[in-house]
Amino acid sequence: MNVTVHGRLTACRTVTFDTRENAVQLIEQRLLPHEFKIVAARDFYATAQAIKDMVVRGAGAIGATAAYGLAQGAAAFRGRDLKRFSAHVQTVVQTLADARPTAVDPVNALRQVRAAMAPGNSVAEQQALALAAAEEFANEDVRHCAAIGRQGARLIRNGMNVLTHCNAGWLAFVDIGTATAPLYAAQSQGRRFHVFCDETRPRSQGASLTAWELAQQKIPHHIIADNAAGHLMQRGEIDLVIVGSDRVLGRTGEVANKIGTYTKAVLAARHRLPFYVAIPLSTIDWNLKRGFDIPIEERHEDEVLGAWGVLAQPPAAGKKSKARARAYVRVANPTSPARNPGFDVTPAELITGIITPVGIFKPAELWQNRRRLGYPG
Amino acid sequence: MNVTVHGRLTACRTVTFDTRENAVQLIEQRLLPHEFKIVAARDFYATAQAIKDMVVRGAGAIGATAAYGLAQGAAAFRGRDLKRFSAHVQTVVQTLADARPTAVDPVNALRQVRAAMAPGNSVAEQQALALAAAEEFANEDVRHCAAIGRQGARLIRNGMNVLTHCNAGWLAFVDIGTATAPLYAAQSQGRRFHVFCDETRPRSQGASLTAWELAQQKIPHHIIADNAAGHLMQRGEIDLVIVGSDRVLGRTGEVANKIGTYTKAVLAARHRLPFYVAIPLSTIDWNLKRGFDIPIEERHEDEVLGAWGVLAQPPAAGKKSKARARAYVRVANPTSPARNPGFDVTPAELITGIITPVGIFKPAELWQNRRRLGYPG
Repeated sequence: MNVTVHGRLTACRTVTFDTRENAVQLIEQRLLPHEFKIVAARDFYATAQAIKDMVVRGAGAIGATAAYGLAQGAAAFRGRDLKRFSAHVQTVVQTLADARPTAVDPVNALRQVRAAMAPGNSVAEQQALALAAAEEFANEDVRHCAAIGRQGARLIRNGMNVLTHCNAGWLAFVDIGTATAPLYAAQSQGRRFHVFCDETRPRSQGASLTAWELAQQKIPHHIIADNAAGHLMQRGEIDLVIVGSDRVLGRTGEVANKIGTYTKAVLAARHRLPFYVAIPLSTIDWNLKRGFDIPIEERHEDEVLGAWGVLAQPPAAGKKSKARARAYVRVANPTSPARNPGFDVTPAELITGIITPVGIFKPAELWQNRRRLGYPG
Repeated sequence: MNVTVHGRLTACRTVTFDTRENAVQLIEQRLLPHEFKIVAARDFYATAQAIKDMVVRGAGAIGATAAYGLAQGAAAFRGRDLKRFSAHVQTVVQTLADARPTAVDPVNALRQVRAAMAPGNSVAEQQALALAAAEEFANEDVRHCAAIGRQGARLIRNGMNVLTHCNAGWLAFVDIGTATAPLYAAQSQGRRFHVFCDETRPRSQGASLTAWELAQQKIPHHIIADNAAGHLMQRGEIDLVIVGSDRVLGRTGEVANKIGTYTKAVLAARHRLPFYVAIPLSTIDWNLKRGFDIPIEERHEDEVLGAWGVLAQPPAAGKKSKARARAYVRVANPTSPARNPGFDVTPAELITGIITPVGIFKPAELWQNRRRLGYPG
């Protein structure tokens, strides 16, 4: 997608590879939305650390980072001994896989790159195959997101108000994103519409990341408190809801996503508004039989008890301070505890459709279309 | 209610009057929940300023503050000339009424105290009548809240989980509060239960004020993100919802309250959970014919784009810093605008009952019971 850096509009992926420097280049996402910076991870240890420290986050983005990290680690090997090379590659894979042990995308990415390397008859050949496979992994992520955009763009008509929740955008993938893909595709087709971004407490990814993305792409939007969507629906100010997902059950059509998604689906159903979930095929879980069994992570209470941001200086004589200090403020009563479930599960009956790269399906249609949707069984 | 000050449990109202010093004493609510402090407004100008600056906020609390402010202003008059005294009182009334021009409670309070003064045949008599009327206004507020508590306490059974939204607590009234009154009454009857406080973005009155109140009264509770209530209802972790209101339409039973209330009512209806609204009779609007006509204040976008709190210092060598700096952090993308409707309207069909000092009514029963509910027509 486009970013304006020093006044110049630049096309930009979240993850790219610099072959000359053998470096993985990443948008430093922890600085967003207050600062835009590309950082270079100059060896595979640094790349693993960047995944671990959440310099890069989001399913597709960390998958591609791991893939590039493996190509980077392989390329750093000096020598021709294939056996020693193999042992080195094993270290690289383990280091990258350990960086975010609960995520499935890096594991899949590493498996894919490693399989692509196998036919190589020399260290040099395997190094070249690794790089090609990593590029292919990233390009495939982009193609999938672009296909989601093509499928979903037809839902967006001129003058619509679209509600989003959390960030399943470009920043979570290599480019384009999933929940945002239909927006970007509709914009490129010349359609005009407006987006409401739920701020998405407690981590506020809607207010910080989705709003930043939309601002970069010059899509008209407003941030709202999570509490406000119901009122706006009552007043007829929302026409369509699109969200992403962390896991969609292929057998039932249930959708796990950021906490608050279920609430928006309940509100949309009451107001007879279409509620769509946009996902790549890798998000579909074909094993689990009921949404109640999806583990819901209980996150740290500090997320609920306060907020992270930059200190707002009072504007002094019209001048803007460039160096804004990052800070966490405690908002809540200091002697009160918090509960912080990170995700919720939306039942199939509340979902109008699942937007995938190969088409839009009703939740109940996923299982009967499982061959097209990549069911491995 | 009780407050622990320097380790001692003390009964405390939000507003009291010190006749010896002729001062209005207020809990400095802008310091809560991070600091508890009683401040004295030493003349009626200071009292008006305290209302204006939101040292004191909430319907009942600012009504009582205005009432005491008038008694305070009257008492400060030196002389016996009733005509000059009357002109002075007019200045006092105008100053206090202008402090929060859109609020109805100070206006009602000032009218009530002034009417009580009228029979006095001397300055001294009128001064004494003003003080008695102000005390009566405050005591009546407390009696009404206590009656709401008695009516509502029977809804709360042992082991229940009660959800609240925003702060319609003790701090918004002289004592006890409205939405919180049934909780405090049930506690005093020995019942044990647990409360979930919606943090209530964007101003977070649930996380800061309601949680502080509950902590002071030692009622077990957890703060949750506004996004989390739906998930907790799905998991059977919420049994009852009680909220306050800014305006209840006597003709339709519709309820205007803090933004997000409507969403909680929709969720409660889906999960067949009882949803109650606790109010004093002064909250009933007998004139408006439909909720859609209730003006919804659009508040400043800074509330949505960031958060106010105290800077959390990393705990240095186990020591707690006493002086914690207050700050506003900008969370959102700095180039994105926000929409910030402050209130929403919940339709009668979603409301199980309206808890009043004279009984619990279904929304549709308000009009037929209008005589008991103080209908002036």
